[in-house]
Amino acid sequence: MKLRRRAHRVLVPGFRFAGVRSGLKATGPDVALIVADRTAVAAGVFTTNRAAAAPVRVTQARIASGRARAVLVHAGNANACTGPHGRRTVEISTARVARALGVPDAAVLACATGKIGVPVPHDVLLPGVDAALAALSPRGFGDAARAILTTDAFPKTAVRRLRLDGRDVTLAVAGKGGGMIAPKMATLLVFVMTDARLGAAFARTALNTAVATTLNAATVDGDTSTNDTVLLLASGAAHNRALAASSVAGRRFVAALTDALAEITELVVADGEGAAHVVEIQVAGARSDADAERVARAIGDSTLCKTAFHGGDPNWGRFICTAGYSGAALDVERVDVTIGGVAVCRRGRPIASALAAAARKMRARRVVIGLDLRLGRGHGRVLASDLSPAYVHFNSAYST
Amino acid sequence: MKLRRRAHRVLVPGFRFAGVRSGLKATGPDVALIVADRTAVAAGVFTTNRAAAAPVRVTQARIASGRARAVLVHAGNANACTGPHGRRTVEISTARVARALGVPDAAVLACATGKIGVPVPHDVLLPGVDAALAALSPRGFGDAARAILTTDAFPKTAVRRLRLDGRDVTLAVAGKGGGMIAPKMATLLVFVMTDARLGAAFARTALNTAVATTLNAATVDGDTSTNDTVLLLASGAAHNRALAASSVAGRRFVAALTDALAEITELVVADGEGAAHVVEIQVAGARSDADAERVARAIGDSTLCKTAFHGGDPNWGRFICTAGYSGAALDVERVDVTIGGVAVCRRGRPIASALAAAARKMRARRVVIGLDLRLGRGHGRVLASDLSPAYVHFNSAYST
Repeated sequence: MKLRRRAHRVLVPGFRFAGVRSGLKATGPDVALIVADRTAVAAGVFTTNRAAAAPVRVTQARIASGRARAVLVHAGNANACTGPHGRRTVEISTARVARALGVPDAAVLACATGKIGVPVPHDVLLPGVDAALAALSPRGFGDAARAILTTDAFPKTAVRRLRLDGRDVTLAVAGKGGGMIAPKMATLLVFVMTDARLGAAFARTALNTAVATTLNAATVDGDTSTNDTVLLLASGAAHNRALAASSVAGRRFVAALTDALAEITELVVADGEGAAHVVEIQVAGARSDADAERVARAIGDSTLCKTAFHGGDPNWGRFICTAGYSGAALDVERVDVTIGGVAVCRRGRPIASALAAAARKMRARRVVIGLDLRLGRGHGRVLASDLSPAYVHFNSAYST
Repeated sequence: MKLRRRAHRVLVPGFRFAGVRSGLKATGPDVALIVADRTAVAAGVFTTNRAAAAPVRVTQARIASGRARAVLVHAGNANACTGPHGRRTVEISTARVARALGVPDAAVLACATGKIGVPVPHDVLLPGVDAALAALSPRGFGDAARAILTTDAFPKTAVRRLRLDGRDVTLAVAGKGGGMIAPKMATLLVFVMTDARLGAAFARTALNTAVATTLNAATVDGDTSTNDTVLLLASGAAHNRALAASSVAGRRFVAALTDALAEITELVVADGEGAAHVVEIQVAGARSDADAERVARAIGDSTLCKTAFHGGDPNWGRFICTAGYSGAALDVERVDVTIGGVAVCRRGRPIASALAAAARKMRARRVVIGLDLRLGRGHGRVLASDLSPAYVHFNSAYST
C-alpha cells in the first residue's frame, strides 16, 4: 500500500492530470483527463473486438499520426453499441478539451469503460469534462488513476524510474480492470506516461513488445471487451537522446515498460471480479509456442479449471482434459503436471501421494500450475483469476 | 414425469439391461450393462479431446467393425489419465462380460464417467460387473438409465415409436449430462437402442446427422470432456427391410432419432450443474453457417453472457460484444437483437423502451435470444445453460 500511495503522488515531467466526478457512475470520480504540456509522441494497442466502441474507433484513427496532446476517459458508460450518437459523444467531448487547450480536435484521444448499449447523456458528461479541465495538475496522477475505475476494488498504478543517457526518466502507469479481462486485451484501460523522448516508431514497437507478454497474457473471464485500450504518451521532457530498439538504452526502456505492465497485469488479475486467487499457468514442452499458449489460455479460461482454482482443489485431471481440447498437439502418456512445484502427474499417471501437499499449494493466494507436454520446445504462460460465486452474483445483475 | 416413468418401463425388442451398485460412486447405482440378444449393428460418436479416456480409445477401435453385443458403463470414475492401468481396467472388465455372454472381448464396448486421474479399483468394479450380468432383464432400461448418472439431478430418457415398412419400431435413448457439456460432445454419455434393422453405414450416417444439430449444439460450460460417447445399437428384431439414407423410411428414422436426441439435449442442458435457465441462441444473417455457429457458441460459452442469463438480465450489449470477438464477420451497425421475441437493439442501436419487457422474457425458464447480423444467409443455433453460483460451489470442491 505504501508503494501505491507513493505512486499516486508521482510527477511525470511534461504532464498534468485530473480525476473528477460527473455523475456517469453511481458514486465516485468518473472522468479522467491526461494532458501533455506539448505535443507528445503517442502509441496505442486496441481491442480486436469487431464491435469496438466509438471512442476506440476515433482514437485508432487519431493516433495514426503518432502524436497526441490529451486523453479524455470516462467510466460508467462504455459508449459501445450506441450508433451514431456514440460517435457524436466522442467528437463533442474531445472538441471541448481541444478548444480549452487550443489544439486540433484530432490531438485529443478518448477512452470509455462501463455499460454497453446506453447512449452517454451529454448533460452529465460535458460538465464533468469542464470540471476536469479546471482541475488539471501535475500532482493529479492519483486522481486520474481513481477516475478510470469501474468495478475495480482499488486503483492500479506502477512507477519505474531509470537513468537513460545520463537523464532521469520516469514511467508512470495507471490501469483499470474488472470483468472482461481476457486475451487480446479486456475492459482494460491502461495509460503509460513517460517523460522519455521516443520516436513514434520506437514507441509503437516498445508498447507492442511489452503488452504481448503482460496484458495480453492475462485472463479473468475469457471475454475481450469492446473498449480495451492501452496508450503510451511520451512528453520528451527528459531530453534524452531519442531511443532506438537496437540500443542498450532502448532495450532498458522496453524492459522497464514490460516490468511496469507486468505489475499492472498482476494487479488486474488479482482484482478480477470476485477473484480470490491469481493462477499462473506455465506450459513447456509444447510442439510450438502457439500450442503452449493455446493450452495455458484454455486452462485459464475453463470454468471447470477456474472453479477448481477457487476451491483450492488440485484437480489436475481437469487441466489435462482442457489441454486435450485446446487444439494443441498432446500425447497424454507424456504429460507431467506440477502444482506449486509439487508433481501430481508424471507421464499422464497420477501420483496419489502428492495430493495433500498439492492441495495446500492450491490454497495459496498465488498459485503456479506447470504442464510439461514433452513434445517439443514450445513454452508460454498465462495469468488467470479464479471463478467465484461472487463473480456470478456480481455479473448476474449488472444492467438491471 | 409421466412420460419419463413410462420411458423407464420401455421394452426394446432384442435388448436386456441392468443397473446396479458397485460402490464406485458414494451412493446409488453406478454400473450399467446393455446387452443385445444377438450381434447388433453399432455406431458411435466420440469426444475429440486428445486426452480421451481409456474406454473411449478401446471402444473406438472395437466399434470400427460396425458390430457389438454389449456396452458396459460405470459412473463415478472416468478412467481418464490413468495410464496403462486404465487400459487394463477396460480389458479386464469387458472380458468378464464377454466370457459370461460367450462372445469375443471385442464385441463388448465400454464407457465411463466421473473423476479424472484416479485408477479404477478393480475389487470394487468387478463384483459390480457380475451383479449387472445377474440382473439383466428386458425391463431394466430404467435401471440402466439411472446407473449412468453422476451429478445429474434426474435420469434423461426419450422414446420414439414409429411404423417403418409395416413394422412397429422403437427407439429408446438414455443419456447423462452434468458439467463439461459442450461443443463436440461433453461428459455426455448417450445410448440409443432400437430394434430397427439398419446397415452399419446407414447407422453411422444416421447417428452423425442426428448428433450434429442436437447434442453437438449444446453447451453447459464450454468444456469438451475426455469421455464423451454416443452409441447406437440396432438389434434388427423389428425385421423391417434394411433402411437407406435416401429412402422415405430412412429419412423418417433419422427424423425420429434427431427428435429423440433433441429431447435428450434439452434435458441435459436444463440439468447442467446449477443451471436454472435453458437459453437457445439463434443466429441469422451471418456471412456463413460457420460464422453463425461461432457467434451462437461464443455467447453460449461466455461467462459474462451466462451470468446475465442467470440473473435474468437483458444485457444485450454483452451478446454483441461476444459476437464481436467470436471471430465471425460483424458490422455492429447492422445487428438486430431480440430477447424472447422482443426487439432490444436495431441496427446496433438500443431500444431503451423495450428493456422492461425483455427483462420479463429473460426470467423465463427457457429463453430464446435472437441475433440477426444482416450480412448474409448463414444461420445456426446453440442451446446453453446459465452460470449460477451453485455451479461454482459445486465445481470448487469436487475432487477433495
